[in-house]
Amino acid sequence: MFKKLVVLFSFVFMSACGADNSTSEQWRVLDINNTVLLTLPHGKVVIELAPQFSPKHVEQFSALVKKSFYDGTKFYRVIDGFVAQAGPKEGGDKDKSVSVLAMEGQFLTGNDYSFTQVQNNDLFAAITGFKDGFALASDNNKSAWLTHCPGTLAMARSNEADSASSHFYFVIGQAPRYLDKIMTIFGRVVYGMEHIQAIKRTSVIAGEYAVDSRDHTPIVSMKLMVDIPLKDRIIIEIENTESAVFSERLIKRRARESDFFYKKPPSVLDICQVPIQSRLVKKGKL
Amino acid sequence: MFKKLVVLFSFVFMSACGADNSTSEQWRVLDINNTVLLTLPHGKVVIELAPQFSPKHVEQFSALVKKSFYDGTKFYRVIDGFVAQAGPKEGGDKDKSVSVLAMEGQFLTGNDYSFTQVQNNDLFAAITGFKDGFALASDNNKSAWLTHCPGTLAMARSNEADSASSHFYFVIGQAPRYLDKIMTIFGRVVYGMEHIQAIKRTSVIAGEYAVDSRDHTPIVSMKLMVDIPLKDRIIIEIENTESAVFSERLIKRRARESDFFYKKPPSVLDICQVPIQSRLVKKGKL
Repeated sequence: MFKKLVVLFSFVFMSACGADNSTSEQWRVLDINNTVLLTLPHGKVVIELAPQFSPKHVEQFSALVKKSFYDGTKFYRVIDGFVAQAGPKEGGDKDKSVSVLAMEGQFLTGNDYSFTQVQNNDLFAAITGFKDGFALASDNNKSAWLTHCPGTLAMARSNEADSASSHFYFVIGQAPRYLDKIMTIFGRVVYGMEHIQAIKRTSVIAGEYAVDSRDHTPIVSMKLMVDIPLKDRIIIEIENTESAVFSERLIKRRARESDFFYKKPPSVLDICQVPIQSRLVKKGKL
Repeated sequence: MFKKLVVLFSFVFMSACGADNSTSEQWRVLDINNTVLLTLPHGKVVIELAPQFSPKHVEQFSALVKKSFYDGTKFYRVIDGFVAQAGPKEGGDKDKSVSVLAMEGQFLTGNDYSFTQVQNNDLFAAITGFKDGFALASDNNKSAWLTHCPGTLAMARSNEADSASSHFYFVIGQAPRYLDKIMTIFGRVVYGMEHIQAIKRTSVIAGEYAVDSRDHTPIVSMKLMVDIPLKDRIIIEIENTESAVFSERLIKRRARESDFFYKKPPSVLDICQVPIQSRLVKKGKL
């Protein structure tokens, strides 16, 4: 009987430890200085910025957000299955007031660059994986770049590489990976993607009336989370893609051991079809 | 002056001819017996069924649609980035009234099976391409199967292969290609995909309140286009994926010759990132 109790105790102790460790490992808190709250007429969206990958773009975008630059601007180019793009009236004073940015679509890495590897010989890259929750690809440790998965936030540009300024887009369809490296991705949606998907489309098919620009979805407001009163903040934690728990989840996702898979699919993972989990810690008044 | 006129005339004549030829080749009319009009509270969606690939599923689904089986049923499982699934109350009389179907996820082909080839050594298949506007994949001409691209309509099932009956789903996110071959795809959205994307999500993250089932998006009605009064039909034409015009478009899409691509992406095409164009011939009253 005593022995049984000891065994029971040590089991409880161990699993409590395990739970604690795995919790602190499995989730990470977002930096409120690099988190954006986007309010649309139909819902709220939380975006994580990526200064570690695209510092100049994040710096400029954050400065614009801080001065309410985007409030009232519209999603004027929304193509189902592709992108939802917003920005100030093209060619207007507001548009021209913003400096252009040098491309940050790709960054050099050493041979020792570490990330959570997911797939070799992806259709578009030698290797894909995750770093800090962001999907990326690499050509054998010489350089790496964030990939255009759904929910990606990137800066629009004209034909020249270094021509992005304030117009941005969210990817809302099958990953347009052909834009990898030649656009600057600088964030991703971590909460409320369904509201991005509900943005009014502006692109019509032949034979259909154009969408009146008065019907384009406006940005009610866009603010850094740090500038939101505490009571209204939406606090999200994100799965830590550098954790052992996440690596195990990748292995399981690849193996598809559930009985549902009566025939097993190829043992591969599309980097844009591996959802990174979020959890809500606190939701402000809506 | 005369010569100028003759040149002008023959130019006009030739381009008129060219336009005519290319039109009859480039577009095809949908069969109203295999086209479905899905009315949601927020918009109308047109679906093309695929009896040539999944005859038994289309037969059963069409019969259910004909008797208004789905009218009033709800999208009860809607996961952003994955699927929007609908059907009658699980385990209820209506649900149990429908026969189960044998899997039609894959079909045998001869060596002479022809389709418009798009990409070799896709992450999930030896070769991908299009047939009759549907994205498919093949393992070197022994068998082929429709692929789970966004907008795909497929039948849900339980763990057993041959267990689908009436519950169906639309793919609303990055192609879950790991479901290829083990689910039966039997149609695809050809118009109004933005309304499918606006279906209320039922899946929430940890820490958030569940969505009340009363808020699930209902199907107002689902009818075969042939059963819709002429004045209310939405008549769509679809790009003919067997046409020379389409093959040329594939070549151009792969080459990315526009100046926008200051650096060219890899010369590959993701079968689920090649939009098939539709055009509206006639839109009923909405």
